[in-house]
Amino acid sequence: MFPKNAWYIACTSDEIAGEPLGRTLCGQRVALYRGHGGKVAAVEDFCPHRGAALSLGRVVDGNLMCGYHGLVMGCDGKVVSMPMQRVGGFPCIRSYPVAERHGFVWLWPGDARLADEGSIPALAWSDDPEWAFGGGLYHIQCDYRLMVDNLMDLTHEAYVHVGSIGQNEIDASPVKTRMEGETVVTSRIMESVIAPPFWQEAMRANGLDPEALVDRWQISRFTAPGQVLIDVGVALAGKGGFEAAPEHQASAVVVDFMTPETESSHWYFWGMARRFKPADVALTEAIREGQGRIFSQDLDVLEAQQRNLQTFPDRRLLALNIDAGGVQARRLIDRLVQAEKTMAATAGTPETAVA
Amino acid sequence: MFPKNAWYIACTSDEIAGEPLGRTLCGQRVALYRGHGGKVAAVEDFCPHRGAALSLGRVVDGNLMCGYHGLVMGCDGKVVSMPMQRVGGFPCIRSYPVAERHGFVWLWPGDARLADEGSIPALAWSDDPEWAFGGGLYHIQCDYRLMVDNLMDLTHEAYVHVGSIGQNEIDASPVKTRMEGETVVTSRIMESVIAPPFWQEAMRANGLDPEALVDRWQISRFTAPGQVLIDVGVALAGKGGFEAAPEHQASAVVVDFMTPETESSHWYFWGMARRFKPADVALTEAIREGQGRIFSQDLDVLEAQQRNLQTFPDRRLLALNIDAGGVQARRLIDRLVQAEKTMAATAGTPETAVA
Amino acid sequence: MFPKNAWYIACTSDEIAGEPLGRTLCGQRVALYRGHGGKVAAVEDFCPHRGAALSLGRVVDGNLMCGYHGLVMGCDGKVVSMPMQRVGGFPCIRSYPVAERHGFVWLWPGDARLADEGSIPALAWSDDPEWAFGGGLYHIQCDYRLMVDNLMDLTHEAYVHVGSIGQNEIDASPVKTRMEGETVVTSRIMESVIAPPFWQEAMRANGLDPEALVDRWQISRFTAPGQVLIDVGVALAGKGGFEAAPEHQASAVVVDFMTPETESSHWYFWGMARRFKPADVALTEAIREGQGRIFSQDLDVLEAQQRNLQTFPDRRLLALNIDAGGVQARRLIDRLVQAEKTMAATAGTPETAVA
Repeated sequence: MFPKNAWYIACTSDEIAGEPLGRTLCGQRVALYRGHGGKVAAVEDFCPHRGAALSLGRVVDGNLMCGYHGLVMGCDGKVVSMPMQRVGGFPCIRSYPVAERHGFVWLWPGDARLADEGSIPALAWSDDPEWAFGGGLYHIQCDYRLMVDNLMDLTHEAYVHVGSIGQNEIDASPVKTRMEGETVVTSRIMESVIAPPFWQEAMRANGLDPEALVDRWQISRFTAPGQVLIDVGVALAGKGGFEAAPEHQASAVVVDFMTPETESSHWYFWGMARRFKPADVALTEAIREGQGRIFSQDLDVLEAQQRNLQTFPDRRLLALNIDAGGVQARRLIDRLVQAEKTMAATAGTPETAVA
Repeated sequence: MFPKNAWYIACTSDEIAGEPLGRTLCGQRVALYRGHGGKVAAVEDFCPHRGAALSLGRVVDGNLMCGYHGLVMGCDGKVVSMPMQRVGGFPCIRSYPVAERHGFVWLWPGDARLADEGSIPALAWSDDPEWAFGGGLYHIQCDYRLMVDNLMDLTHEAYVHVGSIGQNEIDASPVKTRMEGETVVTSRIMESVIAPPFWQEAMRANGLDPEALVDRWQISRFTAPGQVLIDVGVALAGKGGFEAAPEHQASAVVVDFMTPETESSHWYFWGMARRFKPADVALTEAIREGQGRIFSQDLDVLEAQQRNLQTFPDRRLLALNIDAGGVQARRLIDRLVQAEKTMAATAGTPETAVA
Repeated sequence: MFPKNAWYIACTSDEIAGEPLGRTLCGQRVALYRGHGGKVAAVEDFCPHRGAALSLGRVVDGNLMCGYHGLVMGCDGKVVSMPMQRVGGFPCIRSYPVAERHGFVWLWPGDARLADEGSIPALAWSDDPEWAFGGGLYHIQCDYRLMVDNLMDLTHEAYVHVGSIGQNEIDASPVKTRMEGETVVTSRIMESVIAPPFWQEAMRANGLDPEALVDRWQISRFTAPGQVLIDVGVALAGKGGFEAAPEHQASAVVVDFMTPETESSHWYFWGMARRFKPADVALTEAIREGQGRIFSQDLDVLEAQQRNLQTFPDRRLLALNIDAGGVQARRLIDRLVQAEKTMAATAGTPETAVA
């Protein structure tokens, strides 16, 4: 269950550096590519001539040329030309609003008339030389909302991520969940603890004594439909925690964008943005590699959970206080989906209209 | 959608040189083997004793012996014997009309009473020392009719087979489609062009200057339900094209037989027969290897097309003039299928009767 | 089709020596582990908190702790604790009667109130130093009853197991099937034959001349729902066969326990218990390896048979006299299943009640 009138990350900028890319997003087969002047474009991955996958073709003069018989498709879904054929009466296919921001390609799978590029999230670090970012992509066989739950309740770190970012004090520290406008915020503070291995390495990289007592914070912020940004970090104990001066802390933002593929699978774009040693490329790569390994530990858990939920569709799960963040997040998602249903009922189904 | 009262290639002669072969053909599980005196035989791949796959057994005295408990099945589907058991009352299984011709085993999946070996296609080159033949088999996850479309519209060579048999002039040369009796013929002539790489090699092999201007032809001939033979070649420009004297041309017949496995998959027997340097075994192998590589480029395209058509079952595809060959071919197929339905409605379902 | 009120082997003792084990048994997802004092325990593989697979967790103080958020599940399916949460009102999950005997973990998937550990089969050799046992586990994609058929009709050895335990005389020797209480017994005696390779090795290991004429026996004993024990062996000809003195024979018990996973797949626990050279560990391993190789030959046959039976669901198979053992075995199974249906109809469905 996902809203369609929203911006989702379709791919990273790198993924369409060369060839077009075919990817199923929110249940729709999409061909993504760079059109005129390198501008990103997205159309249905379906050639109106014989149904070939346009993503297997190539870009010619800014248009996507079908790799089967040479039909040239415009970025707006209108056929441009085809050798020896008159294309005036050819049916259009659907094109999608897309925009490239922050190293990602954002796609709006719903009603194009509602797509406002201004609502693409601003990511503070993306064009700021004081920040460094590294990340990756996982294709996961579970409902994207299970990943939202996962990220809004970091209690699991104490169990799934033992030996890296997990530590016993996570359990012992209560979480607080609140709304900030349309953002769900779940925070947990651990005071005067020894940092777990991942953060000890970050302290060392940042010139701090890794054995020192620290205050540790985790502040997850969910914005519908599939964005979770998490302020994470440690500061020398008593220096103000999240508010501590830069020289007393090592901190970062865990970046998570989930894009549904189907009702039971999703694309998980993960990464970490940090404000220390931004020019240290080797450190970026080391963090990226470590985060990738840690986050891959969630995959087995989530995919087994998905299978279990499908096996026992009638079971009601428990929502404890640690689940409050996920519960609130789902409430926002539900509300958006419900609003789209209401809109569709009163106004037809504009989101499937050809642009 | 495929007619059942027709000869289809079940396998090559080589495939049953030793062990029996189990293969699904036109939706039916068949065990193919060499019976008495090496004569090909085909029965349902189902032992009437306990349902074991007969194709896992072996041939004993010209009969197929089940590899599970030793039931001996006759080539006519009647049980011959079983150790310590009286077999008089055993039910028959279905046997299929089969015949070995031209290096292939042909099977008639429909009403055995209608099977006439005289209607197995004559393949001019198969027993003629002036010809050489090489080929292979691909198992493709798409409706066999998509491959018929592919072969009846060689426009795709300009896109799918760039760098081998594709060339830009293909697009620029109009195709003509006509009926010759029950055969659909689509032809395209390119005059005074430079040959593409594949044909330049053939010219070199045939003692012609590969850089010379040539007239190139492609004449696809479809015969229902799954046969496409394509006259292909080049002749020195102005020497008469397809009619040019042997010393001025390099030509061949592309051989294509498609046998449905299911509604959405098929066995594709492909090859090339040539009338030059027939004794040059290394050349035969080189051509076979090159053709196999070129034809494998179609697989991704066709399988993605099949998935797309299943995803969008309501879309109507376009039939342009380049598609006329495929359209005519499907019309012939439809007519045969419709005739079988009519026959079944008036006369029961003889094609499923045990022979 | 399988009865639920019965003991089935869930796993070997070794399989849960360390980590918990998740396995689908009789259609139910089960987490198996060693609880308090190493005592085996089994609960539904479903955490009542968020549906995670409990088998991915670990055992803490004799309880299974969920690996996702630390919920501690008791061996009785009642939640013990969860960090920072009150667990009083948490729903129970199902627990299963289990017992460890003879190196196996036995599970009762049905109504726990009917589970009587006294009905777990006694296996003579398991605690007797005069016996040695070696075995393994195969996961097979076929109805467990096809394996029962297989083991109750060893005629197949002459075909499937040529070169190891198969020999032509198997076919020539009639089988006899009788009931001994609730046990189906099928026996076949081959008199004055040369032993096949497997038994020649056993004779050699047992100090007998492998070339000598022997009397060979196979006595399969089926007990519902999934147990087949087979007395197998050879004795020097005329020394009394199965009753011959130990120094004149080489004999063993083939051990087979089939546990349904789904209606069309099962877990096959196989092994061999022998009463000669019990301390010879290398011999145990050599036999185990040989038996594993021989039994793996059945897999292709049985899985192809399963596919065939699903393709032709309306075909009636033949039941010959060699099939009498399997027919009787299925009759016992049918009777148990029917009795459970009757019980469920009159008394609700107690077997699904939470213990």
